[in-house]
Amino acid sequence: MSAHSDQSAVTVIGLGPMGRALAGAFLSAGVRVTVWNRTPGRDAELTERGAVAAASPEEAAAASPLTVVCVVNYAAADSVLRREAVIDALKGRTLVNLSADTPERARDAGRWASEHGIRYLDGAIMTPTMTIGTPAGVFIHSGPADLYEEHRPVLETLGGTHTHLGEDIGRAAAYDVALLDIFWTAMAGWTHALAVAKAEGISAGEFVPFAQGIAAILPGIFEGDAADADSGDFSAKVNPVTSAASSMAHIIEASEAHGIDAGVMRAAEGMARRAIGRGHGADGFVRIAELLGRR
Amino acid sequence: MSAHSDQSAVTVIGLGPMGRALAGAFLSAGVRVTVWNRTPGRDAELTERGAVAAASPEEAAAASPLTVVCVVNYAAADSVLRREAVIDALKGRTLVNLSADTPERARDAGRWASEHGIRYLDGAIMTPTMTIGTPAGVFIHSGPADLYEEHRPVLETLGGTHTHLGEDIGRAAAYDVALLDIFWTAMAGWTHALAVAKAEGISAGEFVPFAQGIAAILPGIFEGDAADADSGDFSAKVNPVTSAASSMAHIIEASEAHGIDAGVMRAAEGMARRAIGRGHGADGFVRIAELLGRR
Ligand SMILES: NC(=O)c1ccc[n+]([C@@H]2O[C@H](COP(=O)([O-])OP(=O)(O)OC[C@H]3O[C@@H](n4cnc5c(N)ncnc54)[C@H](OP(=O)(O)O)[C@@H]3O)[C@@H](O)[C@H]2O)c1
Ligand SMILES: NC(=O)c1ccc[n+]([C@@H]2O[C@H](COP(=O)([O-])OP(=O)(O)OC[C@H]3O[C@@H](n4cnc5c(N)ncnc54)[C@H](OP(=O)(O)O)[C@@H]3O)[C@@H](O)[C@H]2O)c1
Repeated sequence: MSAHSDQSAVTVIGLGPMGRALAGAFLSAGVRVTVWNRTPGRDAELTERGAVAAASPEEAAAASPLTVVCVVNYAAADSVLRREAVIDALKGRTLVNLSADTPERARDAGRWASEHGIRYLDGAIMTPTMTIGTPAGVFIHSGPADLYEEHRPVLETLGGTHTHLGEDIGRAAAYDVALLDIFWTAMAGWTHALAVAKAEGISAGEFVPFAQGIAAILPGIFEGDAADADSGDFSAKVNPVTSAASSMAHIIEASEAHGIDAGVMRAAEGMARRAIGRGHGADGFVRIAELLGRR
Repeated sequence: MSAHSDQSAVTVIGLGPMGRALAGAFLSAGVRVTVWNRTPGRDAELTERGAVAAASPEEAAAASPLTVVCVVNYAAADSVLRREAVIDALKGRTLVNLSADTPERARDAGRWASEHGIRYLDGAIMTPTMTIGTPAGVFIHSGPADLYEEHRPVLETLGGTHTHLGEDIGRAAAYDVALLDIFWTAMAGWTHALAVAKAEGISAGEFVPFAQGIAAILPGIFEGDAADADSGDFSAKVNPVTSAASSMAHIIEASEAHGIDAGVMRAAEGMARRAIGRGHGADGFVRIAELLGRR
């Protein structure tokens, strides 16, 4: 049986923390794994467990019907993949790019792949390395449905939830940036809150159970807001823009009184004040989404 | 039995959505309730259920041993309370201010109350109106412990969790602003993400289950970050600052490519880039809290 037709063989390019987690989970699932990384020496633990170390990305790509790339971004992926020898090796095979980047770059990668006869899927990983190989992992994919179906069995050996979001190759990256938008904005608020709490003599350990309580109310609010956003009914049920603006002003004042920069909250307050200025103060806060999106 | 010694009588000043929820929950618990609001006519449903409508704030304050104030902020509370007749009525009685504002204003209210012989507790409500009277409500309190203990039974008839955070009268407000910092920053990210998703052809309904998944991973991250913040060990276990900055750049680019303002994320990215510039790129993102707090 040639490597090409071996449906349970995978090449992993990129052995950062995430690439190593992916390769490790494939190995645990009994998949034959070939690995390559720009900087040598990252594969020791994997080769000990049976992974084959390829000497070049083209050798790596030639070893399996499916190559998973997981590097820092698409510029890094391009610098590995957009070389003649690698393109030749990938021709007729399938490439899945699980690196994070913008929808536009995913679409560009899709065009490049199709010009070179490379079967291409795009994806993103929404959970940290320790979730890989466990039920907690969340993977999203986009691209041709039949191609996804063909490789789904081996992708699913990574554990967790895999969702095919549609044929638009940029769709997984679009979800990814929007989800990371929530994540990193929330993280900016959390770290800022830790600084404010500390300035007020509150330790992170004292503060964290209450912070977790705030995180716990978000899913319910998201649910209601999503319904409002899709229906276009912004009449405030909870959280009118005016009360958000009032809270935000308190936060900025309390923060800056301790000399703590409040630039993130100042920008958020600006969104709220502009919404009020446009006559939407009594609307629910989710009205901001509609205002931001207006062309 | 005089109203003054009736431990199950409460006055509620402020009948916005939250004040009405508080008064309604006290009534449901069998507490005798007197109400007053600046704008008349907000008490119809409450008086039908047995609440007594006072003709003035001084009459309201004189009717119960405990007065709960819940108005938009402390300037509003002051305009009601800092009048001779009201001060006379409150003298020797207990005032609990559940309005939201800064720790500094709560401390100022504490000084004012003690100068006038008013027994004073400060507090904040961390959950929306529909949680009041249910186990989901979260109330935080600060001020003299014995005073809190004295009024705890009647406060607890509001349901939910009540926590006394300490004797520093500003402590509840400090928790409140820090918790609202997380909440409103996260909400800013969420509404922004909805706008980006929509520009990418993703409906809020399609997007929301994934957004809820992001919210669900926050409590675990908060736990780890809090331990790092208190120990001062910022070596990245997950989420190094560099990878945050890289994600943030993707989000800004994808957002602005659709003409969507990314001011909040630009401010957040600035924090990350400054941390990298100071040599903390390989640290965990929670290092930002320490940098923000440096004097
Ligand atoms: N870590 C997580 O928890 C997590 C979670 C979800 C998604 N992701 C995504 O997964 C991807 C990989 O993340 P990661 O955690 O493994 O770490 P990372 O620091 O984002 O990426 C490291 C990998 O990128 C490679 N790389 C960087 N620049 C390169 C270049 N110019 N040419 C070739 N390779 C280059 C590195 O190779 P060298 O070893 O040679 O530097 C290494 O293999 C990222 O897109 C990240 O957003 C990560
Ligand atoms: N709603 C919630 O889900 C929620 C959750 C947690 C905490 N809170 C906090 O609870 C407090 C009350 O909130 P709310 O939802 O009831 O609505 P709100 O709009 O924050 O406050 C409305 C109340 O404030 C009064 N008020 C405003 N300006 C006044 C002034 N200058 N003088 C006297 N009274 C004045 C209003 O009286 P008029 O009727 O005369 O205007 C009304 O009683 C706020 O601090 C809020 O942050 C609310």
